[in-house]
Amino acid sequence: MEKLPSIEQLIESFASLPGVGHKSAEKMAYSVLNMDEELIEQFADSLINVKKSVHKCPRCGSLTENDLCEICLDESRDKTSLIVVSEPKDVMSFEKIGSFKGQYHVLGGVLSALKGIGVEDLEIESLIRRIEQDNVKEVILATNPTTEGETTALYIAKILEGKDVNVSRLAFGLPVGGHLEYADSLTLQRALEGRKKI
Amino acid sequence: MEKLPSIEQLIESFASLPGVGHKSAEKMAYSVLNMDEELIEQFADSLINVKKSVHKCPRCGSLTENDLCEICLDESRDKTSLIVVSEPKDVMSFEKIGSFKGQYHVLGGVLSALKGIGVEDLEIESLIRRIEQDNVKEVILATNPTTEGETTALYIAKILEGKDVNVSRLAFGLPVGGHLEYADSLTLQRALEGRKKI
Repeated sequence: MEKLPSIEQLIESFASLPGVGHKSAEKMAYSVLNMDEELIEQFADSLINVKKSVHKCPRCGSLTENDLCEICLDESRDKTSLIVVSEPKDVMSFEKIGSFKGQYHVLGGVLSALKGIGVEDLEIESLIRRIEQDNVKEVILATNPTTEGETTALYIAKILEGKDVNVSRLAFGLPVGGHLEYADSLTLQRALEGRKKI
Repeated sequence: MEKLPSIEQLIESFASLPGVGHKSAEKMAYSVLNMDEELIEQFADSLINVKKSVHKCPRCGSLTENDLCEICLDESRDKTSLIVVSEPKDVMSFEKIGSFKGQYHVLGGVLSALKGIGVEDLEIESLIRRIEQDNVKEVILATNPTTEGETTALYIAKILEGKDVNVSRLAFGLPVGGHLEYADSLTLQRALEGRKKI
């Protein structure tokens, strides 16, 4: 079989997605040939739509299709308690638990010398403004437990020092349902340090 | 973050691809938000294009954007030697080796009682017609080394019995570069049976 330009083009598009190698992209492209035309059009439309209709909430940095996101608009939610996350999809993770009734602030990334992401690239200034304006009492730093996530959390904790606000960080420890033998030693060390009386 | 219909729709589309679970589909959908508008449009176009411009070659069942595929049109290729494969992309695998100068015949699947795929669903009748019309001398059965691929190969070998054509099957054995200790016993058994004098 000759190389077909239209398939090659589609393979390239799929391969540009995160976590998709050339072999998987090939498989996906060929599967499109067996899809209904209607489904393919829906697929193509949703690709275009998502970029057109979704944008950042100007208040919290989460994603929305409206002026403000649902959470910022929800009067029943506590404005004085904020969970600070790095990416919009992290908000979804907390919302799935359903127990947090405060609001969120999305940084839009983490500090990274390697990727050249500095303080001015993140929504840190807007966080401070929000804390002052809304009289925020609690800030929960929920960046990822990576070096960069940790650095970012520490940086924010430092600039909030002296302000009348409770700053906390998510707990580190063993994942529920995990096995001791599979835990790396750093996690185990953190679990030991964070031990609680029962 | 609320569930955004446009993102949910895109996640669903990605999740309909082979080998893509919900988590990966989510990751892909969010990555689209960070892509250039131009690239997204190209992606959407190539989805639509592929279905429109690619079709089966009416002669061999491979894929093409023209009336006949390049291999069928190539006068320098030996019409009397055929490799029989199950899927169009298998043709590509052989073409990558580059040593086979005959032509191909794509069955469009394998016999499968489970999936309800019978003889009439595969391009077997057209294979026999081709063998007779083109005076084919050699048929190499190159379906996958799975139960279904094997059944299909045996079935075709059986109906070609008595015809003046050499029918062979791809060799089974150890993959080159593989290790004995990782080979399953069936493969090892086949490698033993197929041993050759050196």
